Amino acid sequence: MKRTLSFLAGLLIAGAAAAQNVDSLFIRRLADEILENSRAYENLRQLTKGVGGRLAGSPGMVKAEAWGQRALQEAGAGRVWLQECMVPHWVRGGYDIFQAERLTANDGKNRKWSTRRLSAIALGNSLASNGARRAPVLLVHDFAELEAKKDSVAGKIVFFNYKFNPRYVHTFEAYRDAGAYRGQGPVRAARYGAVGVAIRSLSEGTDNFPHTGTTASGDTVKTVPSVALGLRDADWLDSAIRSGTTVWATLQTFGRFLPDTVGHNVIGELRGSEFPDQIITIGGHLDSWDPAEGAHDDGAGVVHTIEVLRAFKALGYQPKRTIRFVLFANEENGLRGGRKYAEEAKAKGEQHIFALESDEGGFTPRGFGLSAPDAPFQKFLSWQPLLAPYGASEFLRGGGGSDIGPLGQQLKTPTCGFVPDSQRYFDVHHAANDVFENVNKRELELGAVNIAALIYLVDKYGL
Amino acid sequence: MKRTLSFLAGLLIAGAAAAQNVDSLFIRRLADEILENSRAYENLRQLTKGVGGRLAGSPGMVKAEAWGQRALQEAGAGRVWLQECMVPHWVRGGYDIFQAERLTANDGKNRKWSTRRLSAIALGNSLASNGARRAPVLLVHDFAELEAKKDSVAGKIVFFNYKFNPRYVHTFEAYRDAGAYRGQGPVRAARYGAVGVAIRSLSEGTDNFPHTGTTASGDTVKTVPSVALGLRDADWLDSAIRSGTTVWATLQTFGRFLPDTVGHNVIGELRGSEFPDQIITIGGHLDSWDPAEGAHDDGAGVVHTIEVLRAFKALGYQPKRTIRFVLFANEENGLRGGRKYAEEAKAKGEQHIFALESDEGGFTPRGFGLSAPDAPFQKFLSWQPLLAPYGASEFLRGGGGSDIGPLGQQLKTPTCGFVPDSQRYFDVHHAANDVFENVNKRELELGAVNIAALIYLVDKYGL
Repeated sequence: MKRTLSFLAGLLIAGAAAAQNVDSLFIRRLADEILENSRAYENLRQLTKGVGGRLAGSPGMVKAEAWGQRALQEAGAGRVWLQECMVPHWVRGGYDIFQAERLTANDGKNRKWSTRRLSAIALGNSLASNGARRAPVLLVHDFAELEAKKDSVAGKIVFFNYKFNPRYVHTFEAYRDAGAYRGQGPVRAARYGAVGVAIRSLSEGTDNFPHTGTTASGDTVKTVPSVALGLRDADWLDSAIRSGTTVWATLQTFGRFLPDTVGHNVIGELRGSEFPDQIITIGGHLDSWDPAEGAHDDGAGVVHTIEVLRAFKALGYQPKRTIRFVLFANEENGLRGGRKYAEEAKAKGEQHIFALESDEGGFTPRGFGLSAPDAPFQKFLSWQPLLAPYGASEFLRGGGGSDIGPLGQQLKTPTCGFVPDSQRYFDVHHAANDVFENVNKRELELGAVNIAALIYLVDKYGL
Repeated sequence: MKRTLSFLAGLLIAGAAAAQNVDSLFIRRLADEILENSRAYENLRQLTKGVGGRLAGSPGMVKAEAWGQRALQEAGAGRVWLQECMVPHWVRGGYDIFQAERLTANDGKNRKWSTRRLSAIALGNSLASNGARRAPVLLVHDFAELEAKKDSVAGKIVFFNYKFNPRYVHTFEAYRDAGAYRGQGPVRAARYGAVGVAIRSLSEGTDNFPHTGTTASGDTVKTVPSVALGLRDADWLDSAIRSGTTVWATLQTFGRFLPDTVGHNVIGELRGSEFPDQIITIGGHLDSWDPAEGAHDDGAGVVHTIEVLRAFKALGYQPKRTIRFVLFANEENGLRGGRKYAEEAKAKGEQHIFALESDEGGFTPRGFGLSAPDAPFQKFLSWQPLLAPYGASEFLRGGGGSDIGPLGQQLKTPTCGFVPDSQRYFDVHHAANDVFENVNKRELELGAVNIAALIYLVDKYGL
């Protein structure tokens, strides 16, 4: 009996090993196809250089949607369609100004100022200053210091110089930590009567590009005009103020909301041969901030998505389950695309078994993070040895992406985030240097390899 | 009895866990020290921008040695000294020329040529053409094709257009695969009477920089003048020839060897408090090729080495064993520094228990490779969980570095190589774009974090 059991166990192990071998061979084919024939880099070139910035509501958005539709068709989607959703339409409206003025001489009668134009960009969704606002600058390093100085805030421009904490190895933790100053800094300063806000850009780069991104705004929120400063200029302003000289600033921004307009999620589909009602989603977001080309954020996720489709078709892979390749609308300043996608899925009673997003850049792969119950998480972990040779060796608990968040919340779909190396992401995030030239071809392609491999495994075995 | 054993086992496990905890806390302190206060990036700026290229025998070498000595002293070495060794002194001698000429019209009497200057650089240690050599170009893709065409080689310039194989995930495998064409291509073509050689640069970048590096040369080797071409120009030349038009080229190089000269390994030391006779070596090489600043190759390894020392001193860490921080001479075109170091260690009967080299660039860490017998390798593996949180999660069998190779061979010292991500290395390797600007500050620092942590563990526990 014992022998029989061992024999059966042996068969099972042999069976599992054979399956792993088949999978490892197929993943090798996927990798070879992508590393040799990828269109990802050329697609990224088209999207960044041909379309450029593509914020919701902008002409770039319209061009990007048309491009995405064509790219999904060319990659071989069985069906491509546009899913309409209303998107906010914020416009920057002008060239943002933040000019610092130091009092360099003051003999009672004559005051001499030396001025310096700082590298600045208005925060996304922030509002116009309606003319220049000139006021003394109040330096604070965090919210605690704002509270301590709250009686001095009225009539000032508050400068939040909260730094990324370099001790976080994964830079997204530093981003989350510092993010409150971009999101809530202007609102909290406005409560105490500030007339404007500047924040230190959410970055730890070595250059001076300012980094935009959303701040809390809208009809029901009391806030003030706000900009982000380049890091070198933030350091300069901090030390100028701490040196004791009087520092004023002139702040001018031009942002405003036009009426909501029509945008679209662009969706390609491969219909499943065995379980067509089980839907797997893979996506990135098509929109990007206006100062640059949205190469890492999130051109990379867009071309990853298209490349997985292209590679499956090139190898003649016929999925068992239905795979949707989704280029989401309006992640940056509204999340309307992601919400619409989940809403319609729910309304139609669709069965979404897995959703993966690539929205952390086109850098070299490190792994995946999965938000799911124990059983599917264990299944996911068992695939790690198949992906590790291609760079994705870190299989983490917890993950997803903004656009697939609503699907996870509303349909309990397990959500997964592709995790590339994070060290360079915030050097370029939402800044003018997020351009094609800062994406490495092979790093980008290896991302597609690992994502394709994981989607293949989920398609084959479910989750 | 069983109970007692379990109890003892429990104690042992608890003891091991407590040790791991102490180690994990100390490694966290090392990481914080380096991520917050590192000098690595500033040191790299000084070495690349202040010193620049520093090939053996060049004025840059002399400047670099003086700089390295000072940097090791400032980082807190107990003792700093120069270890003299004779180094080769190859000079490029001029601006290398490779001009392609296509026959665009030929009516029997008049021949019209269209010319194109290609992006080219003479291979390191290659010899002068002594005037321009003009000859038809013979295209071959590999040595097999050279053999097949050997009767057509005489009087030609042979163009080896052997590509990096993109299917290798770790790019050093592609480099090793293609490397024979740089090392042996000119010699093998010379055997059949070629008058010159061009190779495709050993790279898979997306630009057109040509990449130098050594080729077999010297008094006893029969070879011909040789250059590497930028990849875009290599593609162009390949397709021009395959289109059927007659293609000639004019090749001119100026390389020559001056008499060997005096160079130095620059060595800093922290003497061990318990086992001063057990020596741990950590190093990178100070020399670099002439077209650029040697930022990744191997400025990164140099400043990693210095940063580990600085961090140990900053934390007041007193090593048990003697740690040598070595900036090796002449890795690129002679390996005289590494040989000298091993030779002297052997002559003095020194006990070298471990040697680590960082010479794969300043990219984000992925792991370490160790060449050692089973027992030390298992000990090394047991440390993986301590380093993985900082990025070095791949602990591989086999590793080292050119400069510590002789130590491994002659003294059986276990040798270890730091393994950063390899995707971008050959974009810049030995080319004009290997500059400071292409090194990311945090990626560089995380390399130092992981190396410092591993050296700490080897120092504490031996290997």
